[in-house]
Amino acid sequence: MLSVSEAQSLILEAVRPLPAETVPLTPAALGLVLAEDVVSDIDSPPYDKALMDGYAVRSADLAEGANPLAIIEEITAGRTPQRTVGPGQTARIMTGAPVPTGADAVVAVERTRLLEDGRVRIEERDVRPGRNILSRGREMRSGETILQTGAVLRPQEFGLLAAVGRTGVRAVPAPRVAVLSTGDEVVDASQVPGPGQIRNGNGPMLVAQAARAGAVPRFLGIARDEVGHLRALICEGLEADALVLSGGVSAGKLDLVPGALQDLGVRPHFHKVEMKPGKPMFFGTRPPSPFPSPPGGEGISVVPSPPGGEGRVRGGPSATAVFGLPGNPVSALVCFELFVRPAVRALRGEPEPGPRLLRAVLAEDFPYRTDRPTYHPALLSAGERGWQVRIVPWFGSPDLRALTRANALALLPVGDHQHRAGQELSVLRLSDEGI
Amino acid sequence: MLSVSEAQSLILEAVRPLPAETVPLTPAALGLVLAEDVVSDIDSPPYDKALMDGYAVRSADLAEGANPLAIIEEITAGRTPQRTVGPGQTARIMTGAPVPTGADAVVAVERTRLLEDGRVRIEERDVRPGRNILSRGREMRSGETILQTGAVLRPQEFGLLAAVGRTGVRAVPAPRVAVLSTGDEVVDASQVPGPGQIRNGNGPMLVAQAARAGAVPRFLGIARDEVGHLRALICEGLEADALVLSGGVSAGKLDLVPGALQDLGVRPHFHKVEMKPGKPMFFGTRPPSPFPSPPGGEGISVVPSPPGGEGRVRGGPSATAVFGLPGNPVSALVCFELFVRPAVRALRGEPEPGPRLLRAVLAEDFPYRTDRPTYHPALLSAGERGWQVRIVPWFGSPDLRALTRANALALLPVGDHQHRAGQELSVLRLSDEGI
Repeated sequence: MLSVSEAQSLILEAVRPLPAETVPLTPAALGLVLAEDVVSDIDSPPYDKALMDGYAVRSADLAEGANPLAIIEEITAGRTPQRTVGPGQTARIMTGAPVPTGADAVVAVERTRLLEDGRVRIEERDVRPGRNILSRGREMRSGETILQTGAVLRPQEFGLLAAVGRTGVRAVPAPRVAVLSTGDEVVDASQVPGPGQIRNGNGPMLVAQAARAGAVPRFLGIARDEVGHLRALICEGLEADALVLSGGVSAGKLDLVPGALQDLGVRPHFHKVEMKPGKPMFFGTRPPSPFPSPPGGEGISVVPSPPGGEGRVRGGPSATAVFGLPGNPVSALVCFELFVRPAVRALRGEPEPGPRLLRAVLAEDFPYRTDRPTYHPALLSAGERGWQVRIVPWFGSPDLRALTRANALALLPVGDHQHRAGQELSVLRLSDEGI
Repeated sequence: MLSVSEAQSLILEAVRPLPAETVPLTPAALGLVLAEDVVSDIDSPPYDKALMDGYAVRSADLAEGANPLAIIEEITAGRTPQRTVGPGQTARIMTGAPVPTGADAVVAVERTRLLEDGRVRIEERDVRPGRNILSRGREMRSGETILQTGAVLRPQEFGLLAAVGRTGVRAVPAPRVAVLSTGDEVVDASQVPGPGQIRNGNGPMLVAQAARAGAVPRFLGIARDEVGHLRALICEGLEADALVLSGGVSAGKLDLVPGALQDLGVRPHFHKVEMKPGKPMFFGTRPPSPFPSPPGGEGISVVPSPPGGEGRVRGGPSATAVFGLPGNPVSALVCFELFVRPAVRALRGEPEPGPRLLRAVLAEDFPYRTDRPTYHPALLSAGERGWQVRIVPWFGSPDLRALTRANALALLPVGDHQHRAGQELSVLRLSDEGI
């Protein structure tokens, strides 16, 4: 059976970044990966700029003992200096305003004293040239590349892009992820479950996980255990960049999903993973349609091939990634984090899409026996000296409630182990809350 | 002058959680704080439930050597068992299906062998009662409180809430944050700046920061240095839960903002903070209107008063929090993270709204002299043994570009210090990217 990391590698080999689009600088673009090099059209600052409210002075004057100085004008931000500062002269200047010709330093207003005769005494000694001035073009020069393909858009990138006149940029868009619950026993949350029925908790949960992973989610509904209904909803889901199904993939007689997927042209990559919970995890891809791609989708890839990679196809429409998650809620949640989230991140063009495990110190003894590597609900906290983890009580894959007391999964190895307080475990974070 | 932590305390004393609202379980509700106790209306699982595909057996039978067993029926998920398992008998059972009367354990299908005569041989030894079964109500019982006021809504809470029939919950909503840029020298990003002008980078940046902090942002525009225009836009912003202005708060002659705010009933709490960048930071509140609150806004507070707190007013409309940030982009970004983000988190009812500084090990020597505590752009990474930080080159508060190479702020103390590689610094994370 495949290991978790082998399964993750197969997924990341099959998934490539979506074609770039032009996106406006609105919060929806936060976290997207830039797909162009951005060049500045300005020098910034556009002039030698005062970094303080104070007085623009000639440093040589002060060195020679000229003090107090005559004030020749006041320069506010957004105004152009009208006069040259000559020997024995100074100009009152505001933060952000242009330093006038003749002056080569700014003295903070707190280090000066205005005299009754209208002149100003400079009380700072040893004023060096350039003091409290940001010289023209020091942040960036016109024509300079200021952000490169692959940069992630955060608030500071928004500010810099707007400063160079950009209201939109080319970026890899957020993937569309369709979520489909399956099974005759599953009823909507608004219904009272009859005997043998359960409410559809996985739908809202997986939609929320997809949103958190950086996708645009869409819930398709609950497919009955009937081939026609199942196929119709899967067809709809294959229009998305990724389709996530829950239920219908274990080896039970009524598990119709793998067959329905295969009938619709989904090529299976794997169907079982050596892990707990979540063993009957399915992954496949539906090759892109042979029809020409729509205009504008040129398929610019922004991520280099991995070393030794077999040359991913660039450009053109992408395959749809299809994930069949087990129906038990904890299995579904864990499989999403381990397999779907990395795929979403890869579709977004993120350079390191794989889940990163932390090493955390176990807070209390925890004996545990398992025949498969187990992702166990746990509570991670950031201590002064590094990560600390506590194991959360858990009754198995249907016990989602355990995860409401957890914010992480601790990876417990195969065998009968006496895990001791103080030893280190590998841990996967589920969320930042409470950390 | 106030210290940063004194200023933060004044803000958190003045801001209280917004009144709870009923919100649907859509991704927009992710991260909100629950404002009700949620009770289960079901036993979960609703019956003794098989955790494996396999065979439901009588453990006593096997202990007495009865083997192979006669298969009396097949039970799939969503179906009710029709027969009682008697001595020498078993039922084929699927993961999630109800365990039939008579049986008290499930043996995984991989540990059985189907014989040619139709019977099944159990190949697992020492099958104990309860093996591979989750007993009825083990996750939760009908009537039990499963989530409490104050819980944060994450994907697992979505799943659990849907499982108990909830399609919406009472929660503290995301605050509305208005963003206003000010100054005659500021032009829109779509324009080419003339002499002495700069493009409005702060607007898109602060809108993005507000969204990241968990608010619903709205950009109001650029206010000219003219009292009427400035007042009209501030009035609009005071309708929000928080108003964030950039520019117009330093001591320069044309800094009109504090006066305009005071004229509109904003009570100043502080106007300067001992820090770099960002000293001329303003914070005030506009008391709630004396008119009755609209129906439905009962103002349920979900956060207990701090110990020794002077009894925060509960219920009724809240004051608008008003933040005047300096106009330099790095100052604006830093002041947002240190002062506005905690306020947004407090408005959201988050129990620990204050910024949490990490202790990180400095990677390289960095001599630095400063006369105020300085928040310096830095690059934080999660090492195997904890946090590590590198200082990023920076030319001062107008140099936003430096922050595109940073993901954190390192706090550097007053004085002339030779910070050495290996020593610890306090660090504020700006984002998760690249960590």
